[in-house]
Amino acid sequence: MSSQRQIKIIQIGLGPIGQKITKYIVERKGIEIVAVVDPAVDKAGKNLSELCSLDKDLGIKVLPDIGLAMQDNKPDVALLTTFSSLEKIIPQVEEIAKYGVNIVSTCEELSFPWDTQPELAKKLDEIAKANNISLLGTGVNPGFLMDFLPIVLSGVCQQVKQMRVSRIQDAITRRIPFQKKIGVGLTLEEFEEKRRTGTLRHVGLTESMHMIARKIGWRLEKTEDILTPVVAESEVSIGDMRIKPGMALGVQQTGKGYFNGEEVITLIFRASAGEKNPADTIEIKGIPDITCRIPGGINGDIATCAITINAISSITGLSGGLKTMADIPVVSFWQ
Amino acid sequence: MSSQRQIKIIQIGLGPIGQKITKYIVERKGIEIVAVVDPAVDKAGKNLSELCSLDKDLGIKVLPDIGLAMQDNKPDVALLTTFSSLEKIIPQVEEIAKYGVNIVSTCEELSFPWDTQPELAKKLDEIAKANNISLLGTGVNPGFLMDFLPIVLSGVCQQVKQMRVSRIQDAITRRIPFQKKIGVGLTLEEFEEKRRTGTLRHVGLTESMHMIARKIGWRLEKTEDILTPVVAESEVSIGDMRIKPGMALGVQQTGKGYFNGEEVITLIFRASAGEKNPADTIEIKGIPDITCRIPGGINGDIATCAITINAISSITGLSGGLKTMADIPVVSFWQ
Repeated sequence: MSSQRQIKIIQIGLGPIGQKITKYIVERKGIEIVAVVDPAVDKAGKNLSELCSLDKDLGIKVLPDIGLAMQDNKPDVALLTTFSSLEKIIPQVEEIAKYGVNIVSTCEELSFPWDTQPELAKKLDEIAKANNISLLGTGVNPGFLMDFLPIVLSGVCQQVKQMRVSRIQDAITRRIPFQKKIGVGLTLEEFEEKRRTGTLRHVGLTESMHMIARKIGWRLEKTEDILTPVVAESEVSIGDMRIKPGMALGVQQTGKGYFNGEEVITLIFRASAGEKNPADTIEIKGIPDITCRIPGGINGDIATCAITINAISSITGLSGGLKTMADIPVVSFWQ
Repeated sequence: MSSQRQIKIIQIGLGPIGQKITKYIVERKGIEIVAVVDPAVDKAGKNLSELCSLDKDLGIKVLPDIGLAMQDNKPDVALLTTFSSLEKIIPQVEEIAKYGVNIVSTCEELSFPWDTQPELAKKLDEIAKANNISLLGTGVNPGFLMDFLPIVLSGVCQQVKQMRVSRIQDAITRRIPFQKKIGVGLTLEEFEEKRRTGTLRHVGLTESMHMIARKIGWRLEKTEDILTPVVAESEVSIGDMRIKPGMALGVQQTGKGYFNGEEVITLIFRASAGEKNPADTIEIKGIPDITCRIPGGINGDIATCAITINAISSITGLSGGLKTMADIPVVSFWQ
């Protein structure tokens, strides 16, 4: 997998994930950043190395738009870490595709859009095919832990009747923006308000369910995506913050997929302060039954950045089109 | 992944694995056995359903050679479960390839022959390309647990420094031929004699190490495959058999792969009577560290038969050539 020459990357989007990907690429061999794009007023025009706290000065300035970045460089791959929404990335994909550059994106809705947004999926597939590029959505979740890895494990089964995946995280060990994102310390009224406006929602459970179902051959007649607070039973302290009984410790989101009237897929994503046994667990009911457990769970930020970079070699040399983790050669670490 | 019409299978080799695969195919939808081949005098000419204890009579007789089976049927895929040795399957692959039929085999040495037997690998690749067929070696181990699954898990890593996989099985729960195969109840002299003649050896550890190393980009300068007895410390009873202290309870086989002077890969395959904590465990030292554990372990016979059948859909529609689990789209259960 190691390349004779450097693989040239354009990084589009410099939020927390885009910044970490940039750092990771700098640490790796065989791969280099040739341009970065972010139009935000506090980013465009800035020195990349300062913005991302890199050890060395790459002499790269953040550019305000994709066209500028493409004109002066000939990247092999664009990493797109801008939006969770499929609709919002379409203009960006169109712009990149014009230059014939493959794309790996952390856009959650891109991970498996064939059933959730079939028309947009078809449109993206056509754009990718017309420009002979590969377009892939990946990340730890969706893209790996609650879809791809269960699919992999099913490969040694003669029968699969049910799949249950849980990702249980202790928010105390995570960064404060993450704790805010999952509603730690909110009253249940505040939690409900945030739930209603969609700001607590983890994007991707439904995409994960459809990836599993399509690969296995279940035609899901219904999916559910249910968001509830994890409520403190006794007082919990995080640093200076004291969370009283009845307040939110975090969030649980449950995805359910039904086939022939049975709940064949259950995905439980729970992140709250003070979880006793954080772990990622995959359970398959079938022949044989399989339980696979990753104690402590996989760190989401590291994993999403790593898999986005690692996917580059798996989408190289394919025929053009919209790809998913379920239909490309396996993504591994490579050096 | 489900097919509009039945996928037609020819099963070649009716040892325990070939018989179980036959049973499994009969249980599944979308796939059917159209012919079976085994030249053994106690099999050729026999009724397949009787031989494999199937519930229904398929009206299929075991044929003595591949040519006969191919002439009267148009199979989509041949499942080849005859030999562990790459050299021994070459004439069979040549014969099948003439008919343009894809092949999935449980031949352990075929799982990743590029470094262990490069000339034969090249020859097989040429045969497959010349006849535009896909040729894949798979199984639980090699093919999944100690190579493919660790590769999959590395996909969420920014760095991998070391991989350690252990497959620890309690032989008490396994069939008697398996117990014999691993040397349960032998004196250490008898064990050593069997070790010397190679009858205790599990084939595939070296292939697994090379699959991992190639995918990650480690050029292994040395591999080791070390076979030692697991010795009883106190008396152990299995049914009527009493294994005295100092006798063999089973076997441990350890694979070690070295890169830049470091032991980067360690594979431990241990099967013995009375193992306390049977489990399959994958440990990655890197960024992040990952431990993934399957308590009890995956049943080898079920898994090998299932993955062989499941692989059929992943090798369909590829360009011709020798494939490995590391370069085809992910194998999943499908129905």
